[in-house]
Amino acid sequence: MKRDSHSQTEARVEPDEQTLAILDHSFDPYVVSLLASYEKMGGLNITDSLNTPSKRAVGEICRDLLQILFPGFHDNDSVAVGSLEMVTRARLTSVIERLADQVRKSVRIGNPNVPTGRTPPIMQRFCKALSVVRELLRTDIEAAYAADPAASGYDEIILAYPYIEAIAIQRLAHRLYRLGAPIIPRMMTEWAHSRTGIDIHPGARIGLGFFIDHGTGVVIGETCVIGNHVKLYHGVTLGARSFAKDDAGNVVRGTRRHPHVEDNVTIFPNSTILGGDTRIGANSTIGANVFLMKSVPPNTLVIYEEKQLSFYDKLAKKVRSNGLDFSI
Amino acid sequence: MKRDSHSQTEARVEPDEQTLAILDHSFDPYVVSLLASYEKMGGLNITDSLNTPSKRAVGEICRDLLQILFPGFHDNDSVAVGSLEMVTRARLTSVIERLADQVRKSVRIGNPNVPTGRTPPIMQRFCKALSVVRELLRTDIEAAYAADPAASGYDEIILAYPYIEAIAIQRLAHRLYRLGAPIIPRMMTEWAHSRTGIDIHPGARIGLGFFIDHGTGVVIGETCVIGNHVKLYHGVTLGARSFAKDDAGNVVRGTRRHPHVEDNVTIFPNSTILGGDTRIGANSTIGANVFLMKSVPPNTLVIYEEKQLSFYDKLAKKVRSNGLDFSI
Amino acid sequence: MKRDSHSQTEARVEPDEQTLAILDHSFDPYVVSLLASYEKMGGLNITDSLNTPSKRAVGEICRDLLQILFPGFHDNDSVAVGSLEMVTRARLTSVIERLADQVRKSVRIGNPNVPTGRTPPIMQRFCKALSVVRELLRTDIEAAYAADPAASGYDEIILAYPYIEAIAIQRLAHRLYRLGAPIIPRMMTEWAHSRTGIDIHPGARIGLGFFIDHGTGVVIGETCVIGNHVKLYHGVTLGARSFAKDDAGNVVRGTRRHPHVEDNVTIFPNSTILGGDTRIGANSTIGANVFLMKSVPPNTLVIYEEKQLSFYDKLAKKVRSNGLDFSI
Repeated sequence: MKRDSHSQTEARVEPDEQTLAILDHSFDPYVVSLLASYEKMGGLNITDSLNTPSKRAVGEICRDLLQILFPGFHDNDSVAVGSLEMVTRARLTSVIERLADQVRKSVRIGNPNVPTGRTPPIMQRFCKALSVVRELLRTDIEAAYAADPAASGYDEIILAYPYIEAIAIQRLAHRLYRLGAPIIPRMMTEWAHSRTGIDIHPGARIGLGFFIDHGTGVVIGETCVIGNHVKLYHGVTLGARSFAKDDAGNVVRGTRRHPHVEDNVTIFPNSTILGGDTRIGANSTIGANVFLMKSVPPNTLVIYEEKQLSFYDKLAKKVRSNGLDFSI
Repeated sequence: MKRDSHSQTEARVEPDEQTLAILDHSFDPYVVSLLASYEKMGGLNITDSLNTPSKRAVGEICRDLLQILFPGFHDNDSVAVGSLEMVTRARLTSVIERLADQVRKSVRIGNPNVPTGRTPPIMQRFCKALSVVRELLRTDIEAAYAADPAASGYDEIILAYPYIEAIAIQRLAHRLYRLGAPIIPRMMTEWAHSRTGIDIHPGARIGLGFFIDHGTGVVIGETCVIGNHVKLYHGVTLGARSFAKDDAGNVVRGTRRHPHVEDNVTIFPNSTILGGDTRIGANSTIGANVFLMKSVPPNTLVIYEEKQLSFYDKLAKKVRSNGLDFSI
Repeated sequence: MKRDSHSQTEARVEPDEQTLAILDHSFDPYVVSLLASYEKMGGLNITDSLNTPSKRAVGEICRDLLQILFPGFHDNDSVAVGSLEMVTRARLTSVIERLADQVRKSVRIGNPNVPTGRTPPIMQRFCKALSVVRELLRTDIEAAYAADPAASGYDEIILAYPYIEAIAIQRLAHRLYRLGAPIIPRMMTEWAHSRTGIDIHPGARIGLGFFIDHGTGVVIGETCVIGNHVKLYHGVTLGARSFAKDDAGNVVRGTRRHPHVEDNVTIFPNSTILGGDTRIGANSTIGANVFLMKSVPPNTLVIYEEKQLSFYDKLAKKVRSNGLDFSI
């Protein structure tokens, strides 16, 4: 154990030595019980997880994919124009090799002995999609600039708008998802979720010119369909309502569970829209903090009006006697 | 200073040299005023902080604890079955030594000269708890799989569901909290909060089979009690209402301030439930965006109904004239 | 490609070699199409981005600025009192040089050939502001301690309250913003946003003794003005309502768009307050999940009352027949 160089009394040293002694002589039972626990438990079983994909590896892959999509913006040092081709080739080779390794592991989960051969064609199509995704991202950046008066230019949007990371990673992960790669697409969007607070399932189908302002708390479910030029604020949920169960009482997987949002819709902060039959018509606007589980036609404004709020004078006595005291 | 290798004009070089000159010759006053500020200020006092726990160190400890709980899932490389015992022993020794170091520092805060001896027994019991916590986590993973149709299997839940990190760290931190370790448990849950957006106080008591979907924005307060098989969505707050103050006007610490949620309760996104006397009865369901400060009996459904929303045709003139224009 | 050392069958090796072959021989078209994409696209143009500021570099600068503001709290190892001056000087020199480099790049965006000379005086004033910002942060820490019964002391607040990172970085970024540095201030607050879920624009003007509890999902817009001793909970939005457009239909930039919150106001979780003309009077309290777009006078309590909620017995038949089934 590293000793604290600032100890000023003998007394302070004792606990360290005591700890050290305990650690040296009595670790065995804890190791034994952990190993027993690894053996025993379904879902955390070590023989399953030895060749499992790695959260850390997938995180590093995502970081490097952002570098490839936006050269210069994610580097510590500038990239010289003359070396751009070489740098791009090196980065692409490295990231695709590592991603192929993770995809191959994910393909084998629950199926370790079957030769798959599934990974190479997936990776080939994924490489092909990179410049296509870049074109989609251009429409997203243009949408952000058009919508937000706080944006000074495209550079600021790439450098400082968190949703750009979230949508870039989702658009890449969506390709992998459609190509049939298991688990890795979800790990990619969860990496972006961790960094941005924006949780977009790789299965969601999202149109051109998509913009999420601020973004923290946004949830977009697996079977969502989002049209072109849709704008969401932070805290918006496009979620499932309740799930069908089969005769055995198990949740049915793979059905349509999340809303369809048509073109040019804007949804204000913290609104929750649920259900696979819920369709928000084109050009509609949903106000803030709304809870909605039914469809609305095009050109609709849905709001929770202020007349439903109560306003009290805090200096009046009845506020305290009614138990309405919120002051801290 | 590192020079920009892409400068194309003489003019561009000048500011660098100017900056450099300023940095070389005039840093002294800023250092002096910072040191004076360190000396002076309560709460940020340097003599207090020299032996303070470290956010970075605690973060690395949490990361390594996750590796021990889920071997293989958080590694860059696979762990070979044959080396698992050795790897586990090495990891456990390293992480417990470092955690003991942080706990010892936290125990001494505000009390630097008293020999404590408190750390070794805390660490011993903490080691013992690791495999117990692993059993609790198995029930959490099973609950997630049972509830979410988007989950393909247990592996995906461990690899891609952020709440697993949050609940794993909270269940470990809760042990340290109950063993009397100050501050470190809270630093651990804040590490998980930073990565997941899920803020569970280490003091909260949480039953078996707990599931949080998506998770961003969830807040669970220090004195919360949560039963078995409870399911929360993102943005749910189980918080305090208002705080008792003593005669001197200071907030009273240590009283029960947060709700009790009984078995089999589901709470939908962005609902806020406050108060130490608030009890949500077993098998109840709370809808989305609800604000609740009173108890409900078992088997209750609480919702904010759509009839309270207003629906306008955006093409009609009165929407604009009423100042209801939300379109951007 | 790194080979999987745990392969147990020949069949498993094949895909790797297949992948490898594809990678070696057919990367060229993807590199070519990426380079063409870099050339072509506005907003992601490589010649713009080569000398662009870097997200990673700004993140490391923010991390090091926190170390300077709170010596000891962000270090892996303790800082000895005797070496504090030397450590502080070395850290300050390093961080200011790197920050100057980023600011210089940001100043040149869209304006590469003009000698600027703007960076040195900005950095000089920024250095001067460091100890002033430290004094402001002391009032924030005192406010947190006074308000939260869960806080055991100032140390815990610095070590475990995420808003301290967010407000520390915002108060520094606000200085750079007022000194006219483009983009970098926003990148700094987005770094804090990513770590804390708290999104405070560097333009926001925030008084003494500011406290945000939990914090995830908080959004504070560019033109917000916040008085002294204001307390916010997680999920609170102080945002824009709708934006003025000029005759050409473009959004007008630079106008006042966000609320004014006066002294001693408390705003409970997940409330959304919008609009540049919205002023929350001193000593007012806004309840949870409120959506507010108009001003309130001082000493007002605004709540969404429970009488607007509906309570159903889930065991009664009509709940299911009304389509109110939320249980999963």
